[in-house]
Amino acid sequence: CFRRGLQTVTLIPGDGIGPEISVAVMKIFEAAKNMPFWEERNVTAIQGPGGRWMIPPDCKESMDRTLIGLKGPLKTPIAAGHPSMNLLLRKTFDLYANVRPCVSIEGYKTPYTDVDLVTIRENTEGEYSGIEHIIVDGVVQSIKLITEDASRRIAEYAFEYARNNQRNSVTAVHKANIMRMSDGLFLRKCREVAENFKDIKFTEMYLDTVCLNMVQDPTQFDVLVMPNLYGDILSDLCAGLIGGLGVTPSGNIGANGVAIFESVHGTAPDIAGLDMANPTALLLSAVMMLRHMGMHDYGKKIETACFDTIRDKKVLTGDLGGKSKCSEFTEDICRRVRDMD
Amino acid sequence: CFRRGLQTVTLIPGDGIGPEISVAVMKIFEAAKNMPFWEERNVTAIQGPGGRWMIPPDCKESMDRTLIGLKGPLKTPIAAGHPSMNLLLRKTFDLYANVRPCVSIEGYKTPYTDVDLVTIRENTEGEYSGIEHIIVDGVVQSIKLITEDASRRIAEYAFEYARNNQRNSVTAVHKANIMRMSDGLFLRKCREVAENFKDIKFTEMYLDTVCLNMVQDPTQFDVLVMPNLYGDILSDLCAGLIGGLGVTPSGNIGANGVAIFESVHGTAPDIAGLDMANPTALLLSAVMMLRHMGMHDYGKKIETACFDTIRDKKVLTGDLGGKSKCSEFTEDICRRVRDMD
Ligand SMILES: CC(C)[C@H](C(=O)O)[C@@H](O)C(=O)O
Ligand SMILES: CC(C)[C@H](C(=O)O)[C@@H](O)C(=O)O
Repeated sequence: CFRRGLQTVTLIPGDGIGPEISVAVMKIFEAAKNMPFWEERNVTAIQGPGGRWMIPPDCKESMDRTLIGLKGPLKTPIAAGHPSMNLLLRKTFDLYANVRPCVSIEGYKTPYTDVDLVTIRENTEGEYSGIEHIIVDGVVQSIKLITEDASRRIAEYAFEYARNNQRNSVTAVHKANIMRMSDGLFLRKCREVAENFKDIKFTEMYLDTVCLNMVQDPTQFDVLVMPNLYGDILSDLCAGLIGGLGVTPSGNIGANGVAIFESVHGTAPDIAGLDMANPTALLLSAVMMLRHMGMHDYGKKIETACFDTIRDKKVLTGDLGGKSKCSEFTEDICRRVRDMD
Repeated sequence: CFRRGLQTVTLIPGDGIGPEISVAVMKIFEAAKNMPFWEERNVTAIQGPGGRWMIPPDCKESMDRTLIGLKGPLKTPIAAGHPSMNLLLRKTFDLYANVRPCVSIEGYKTPYTDVDLVTIRENTEGEYSGIEHIIVDGVVQSIKLITEDASRRIAEYAFEYARNNQRNSVTAVHKANIMRMSDGLFLRKCREVAENFKDIKFTEMYLDTVCLNMVQDPTQFDVLVMPNLYGDILSDLCAGLIGGLGVTPSGNIGANGVAIFESVHGTAPDIAGLDMANPTALLLSAVMMLRHMGMHDYGKKIETACFDTIRDKKVLTGDLGGKSKCSEFTEDICRRVRDMD
C-alpha cells in the first residue's frame, strides 16, 4: 500500500495475445472509471555496452518512475545466449518475491474445490544463479546459491504478507534433509523470522511431501514460502489445481513498492489477433496490482465482476469452455462493473 | 529378467510398521506357493574405519550374493551427521534408477482416474551430490552435478523400460532453460538415446509445465525420465494422484540385475505393532520384484488378489477407508491367491 488514487502504470502488453488481453484490461478499468494513465512500453532485449543484455532504456526509465508495471506474456527467446526477458525484468528491478494466490474459481470445474493458498517464491537466487561449469569433459556442475540476506528478506515478506492478508499460517518448503547447508540456511532464516510473527503459525515441510499432500488435499495449505526453483514448480502445480495459467494471477515484488504484475501463461501465437484469448489472468494480476497500490475497493469491484461472468457461464472464451470472443467476455465484465455503481 | 524360480531374497523389514507389513508379504507369498528363501537383515548405519558410515556387513554380504532386496521403511536418522539409510543403500549398491509405476487403483477413489504412468528417476547425482560450501559468511552454495555417463545410463534405462513394458512414449523432464549446462547435458543424452529407440515416442517438457499438466490431466503421460531431485518431487506428486505412498510401489535398480524394492512410506511409529498397518505398498513392490526376476505370472496373481481385495471394499485397513486389521486384510488377499489355483 504505497500510493493511492489515479496514477501512472507502465504497461508492457507483450507478444502474441498480449496486446489484445491488455486492451481488454484497459477497457474493464475504464468501465470502473478509475483509469490509471497507461504508459505503454515494449520489451525486447537489447544489447548494451560490452554485449550485456538489457531491457530497453525507455521501459527501464518508465518503471523507475512509475514503480508499477503490468505485463502480458513475452515470447521465449530463441537465439542462443539471449536471456529470458522475464528473468531480465526480475533482475533489473530486483523483484525478489513472486507472489501467486491460487483460489478456486466458482463455476470453473477442476478436480479440486476450496483451494485458497498463496505461493511466495524467492525470485533472485538459488538454482537460478546462472553459474555453471564444465569440470571435465562430460561432468557439469550448476551452482545453487542461497544467501542469508535473500532468505531473510523473502521470509519476512511471506510473514508480512500473511499478516496483511488475514492468513493464518506460513509453511516453509525445503529439502534441507538433502541440501543441508543451502536449504538449511533458508530454513533457519524462516525459523528466525517466524519468531517475530507469533500471530502466524509456522510449519516446515519437505518439497516432495508438499507435492504429495498438495494433490491429495490442497485445502491444508495457506501461505507457502520457498527458494526459487521450488517456487517455479509449486506455483505452476497450484495453478493447475484451480484451472491453469489462464486464470492465475502473479505479482513480482521488489523493495520500496516497485512491482510488476503479470499473466504467466504463454503468448499463444496460434490464436493471436483472432479475438479468442482469455484476459482473466492479466485482469486478476491487474486486480493484485490495485490491491498493492492500496485501491482495495476498486480491485474488489473488478474481481467480483470477473468471477460473476465466469460463474454465470453464459459468456466464456473457448479455454473456459465457452464460445465467446475475448471482446464479448470483456464486455460482459464491463457491463457488470458499470452496473455496480 | 535375470533369474527364474525359487531363490533367495534379502529381506530388510525396517523400522516401525516395517516388520508387520513384511510378515504380511511373506504370508501372501506363501499362499501363492512360491516362497523365496527370505534372508532377513537389519539395516542401521554403522561407522566403519575412519568414521565412514556404512550399512552392516552382513546386509551388504547378503545383497552382494542374492542381488535382490525387499525393504520396508527405515526411520529417518536423527543424529547429526548420520546419513539417510535410504541414500546409503542407493549409494552402496549403485542403484541408479528409481522406478515408480503409478497406476489408478480401481475402487480406491481419488480425484483422478486412469492414471497409468511410470516415473524413472536418476538416483545417484544431481542435487544429491552432497557437495556444499560456505563461500563467505551468509552465502552458501550447493553443487548439482550432472554427468554424461549417468545421464546416458538413466536415459537408456528409461527407453528400455518403455520397450520391455509395452509403453509408447518417454518424456524427459528438465529445466534446461535455466540450468543450460547441467540439465542441458541431461537432455542432450536423452535426445541421443532416443535416436536408438525409434519405436518409442520421445518428448521433452519443463518440470514446471509437467507439474501443471500432471494435475490437470495425468493421463497424457506415460514414462517420464528425469534428474534426481525432479524425480523425488514428481514421484511423490504422482503417488498422490493415485492414493499416496501407502499404495505406491518403488524399485531401485542397479547394474547387473541388482535391485532393491521398497515401500516409500514412513515407519508410522504411532501404529507400529497394533496390527493396523497397510501392507499394500510393500506388497506391490514385491510384485515389481517378481517381475524384475522374470516371474510375471506369479506377480500377476498376487497383484490381482490385492487389487480385488481393494476393489471389493469389504476388508480394508483404516488408511484405505476400512476398519480391518492388517492381518485380516492380508488373509483376504491370501484367500484370493489360494482360490486362483
Ligand atoms: C520463463 C521461465 C524462465 C520462468 C522460470 O523458470 O522462472 C517461468 O517458468 C516462470 O515461472 O516465470
Ligand atoms: C528419505 C529421502 C532422503 C528421500 C529422498 O529425498 O530421496 C525420499 O524422499 C525418497 O524419495 O526416497
